Amino acid sequence: MKPDFEQRLSKLRQRMSAEGKQALLVFSLDNLRYLANYSGEAAYGIVTMDQLFLITDYRFIEQAEEECFDCQIICRNRDQQSLGQAIRQVLDEKHITSLLFEAGHITLQTWSGIAPELAGIACTASSGVVEELRKIKDAWEIAQIRKAAAIADQALHDCMPLLCIGVSERDFALELEYRMQKLGSEGLSFPSIVGFGPRSALPHCIPSAETLSEGDLIVVDFGAVVNGYRSDMTRSFVAGKANTQQRNIYHVVQQAQQAALDSLHAGQLATITSSAASKVIQTSEFAAYTSTGLGHGVGIQLHEQPFISPVCQDIFQANYVVTIEPGIYIPGYGGVRIEDDVVVLADGYSFISQAPKIFELEI
Amino acid sequence: MKPDFEQRLSKLRQRMSAEGKQALLVFSLDNLRYLANYSGEAAYGIVTMDQLFLITDYRFIEQAEEECFDCQIICRNRDQQSLGQAIRQVLDEKHITSLLFEAGHITLQTWSGIAPELAGIACTASSGVVEELRKIKDAWEIAQIRKAAAIADQALHDCMPLLCIGVSERDFALELEYRMQKLGSEGLSFPSIVGFGPRSALPHCIPSAETLSEGDLIVVDFGAVVNGYRSDMTRSFVAGKANTQQRNIYHVVQQAQQAALDSLHAGQLATITSSAASKVIQTSEFAAYTSTGLGHGVGIQLHEQPFISPVCQDIFQANYVVTIEPGIYIPGYGGVRIEDDVVVLADGYSFISQAPKIFELEI
Repeated sequence: MKPDFEQRLSKLRQRMSAEGKQALLVFSLDNLRYLANYSGEAAYGIVTMDQLFLITDYRFIEQAEEECFDCQIICRNRDQQSLGQAIRQVLDEKHITSLLFEAGHITLQTWSGIAPELAGIACTASSGVVEELRKIKDAWEIAQIRKAAAIADQALHDCMPLLCIGVSERDFALELEYRMQKLGSEGLSFPSIVGFGPRSALPHCIPSAETLSEGDLIVVDFGAVVNGYRSDMTRSFVAGKANTQQRNIYHVVQQAQQAALDSLHAGQLATITSSAASKVIQTSEFAAYTSTGLGHGVGIQLHEQPFISPVCQDIFQANYVVTIEPGIYIPGYGGVRIEDDVVVLADGYSFISQAPKIFELEI
Repeated sequence: MKPDFEQRLSKLRQRMSAEGKQALLVFSLDNLRYLANYSGEAAYGIVTMDQLFLITDYRFIEQAEEECFDCQIICRNRDQQSLGQAIRQVLDEKHITSLLFEAGHITLQTWSGIAPELAGIACTASSGVVEELRKIKDAWEIAQIRKAAAIADQALHDCMPLLCIGVSERDFALELEYRMQKLGSEGLSFPSIVGFGPRSALPHCIPSAETLSEGDLIVVDFGAVVNGYRSDMTRSFVAGKANTQQRNIYHVVQQAQQAALDSLHAGQLATITSSAASKVIQTSEFAAYTSTGLGHGVGIQLHEQPFISPVCQDIFQANYVVTIEPGIYIPGYGGVRIEDDVVVLADGYSFISQAPKIFELEI
């Protein structure tokens, strides 16, 4: 199994044609990874109807030549040629008179430097052309996310014995991160979130020196990376026996996740899935303690389209990979979030994360 | 010792006044960290002559309230108010009619959404106002970088016994990274570079499964983070006895670094320091195998102003913190880079990195 770059480019060119444009300027490195397999920095892409150009400089030229798929690689001498000039040279060579450019991935300042060089070429700001394609994952992409998730599952399993009274959030996060990388993760999907006790209510808790006490709620949110593809999973626990309140919170979150999953299939409106989960929480005693985002696409980026919320316009399609992660966060008390990565199927979904959902830890 | 936010804001306001502007829109999160102590995401700052506003949303509000120094924190409901509207509301409240905005830290797309809301206000694109201030570090900032560098020094010392025949680049990098975090680093300054043999010639070598063999050149480039401040150090080694060529390369790089350091003091032109190093390499047998960048500022960002190169316009000032990192990279053979962080002083410099420079490893 290999990534099918030709198919990706072919789909992109269909979009470009549909908009009557001859080229796309790609300013997003994530999109360059998707289109050309490039994983370095400081690069800019130009997709024409029959070629893909990648402009970089001496620092990344070896990497580009090693990694890139079927690409014209241009090594720009930054002291002698501006980025705008380098782009113009390619456009003239290919007789481009109209193009799309990724306005969401270029700073106003950089664009102000490029634009004058593109005089006479009709440049149309475009948003999310490649991101739209990236929503539907191919078999190779799903396999990478599954590998990343399997690493995260295994790392959590291996590190569970360390989640005991007295361990600090920071030390547990570090052990988990070390273990994922030992198991083959390329760095981290994102800085792990580990929160104990009241800190578990912080949706983006940065692991601290806080140590685990009996009865604490625990939130652990982390992920691995394989071939540039990320996983993202959250498990929540209680250190020992849960009290009634904690058990109720966990139960509501679990029910909310299940309701969302039950609604999930290709053709479903994202808003329906979003409201399936929120209905469960809204009709519980914890209605005041939740947030509006239910989940997001995951792939080359940790957070990518679609963003599942009450205002999401998307309709799920087969082979979307999304997180479903309802949560209840009671400030000063604690929180519970349960998050899994799933593939959307024609008639339902398939779990990517496999780690068991055990709430009460034996301590 | 504490960071002096008041002084930072006061200096910034002097610049704003000098340009005849009443406010600065801050779009860089690094600059918000510098001005307001905010370390979260999804935030936008407005500095007026007497206040600092930080606009964020529910996800980061607790963090903002906990961290921010003397700041008006605004929690925007993203479903009900656009970013432009939220900014406009503050500007109207403060009767702002002219402002600077950070054009290098906002995408064209986001700015296109904000700009119409700012009709009637004179908005001037500005570049590097805060970055200019950040070049000169205060005592607290230098102390943080020193702490980060001390962690990196200690981690390298602790991990040196692992740098032995058969270890992989990836495993050595991971142990170093784990150790730095155990010693208190907040994550990593950047993904470590570890290259063995011919891979040591790749300036941005991503650690691979490649294992160390006797006689290999080794480049290790890594750093720690303390209170948001980064360190950055490179050491080069040879696995065992160096051959003549390796010894010559190392010697030239060492001489180049020393020449640059000897030239360093407040008031010195960055180009003089740059050419001090390059002269040594250019007159050696390895003239064809170097790069133009000699070093960079380091602080909240890994790479920040000034960028020391033959085209750098900067004049060093006291309390700049910069890296001095000449290197020789022979494709297919191997490379050597020696990098230290130093503080620029009135009459010289002071080392921040302290790790010894031992070239030949006992194996």
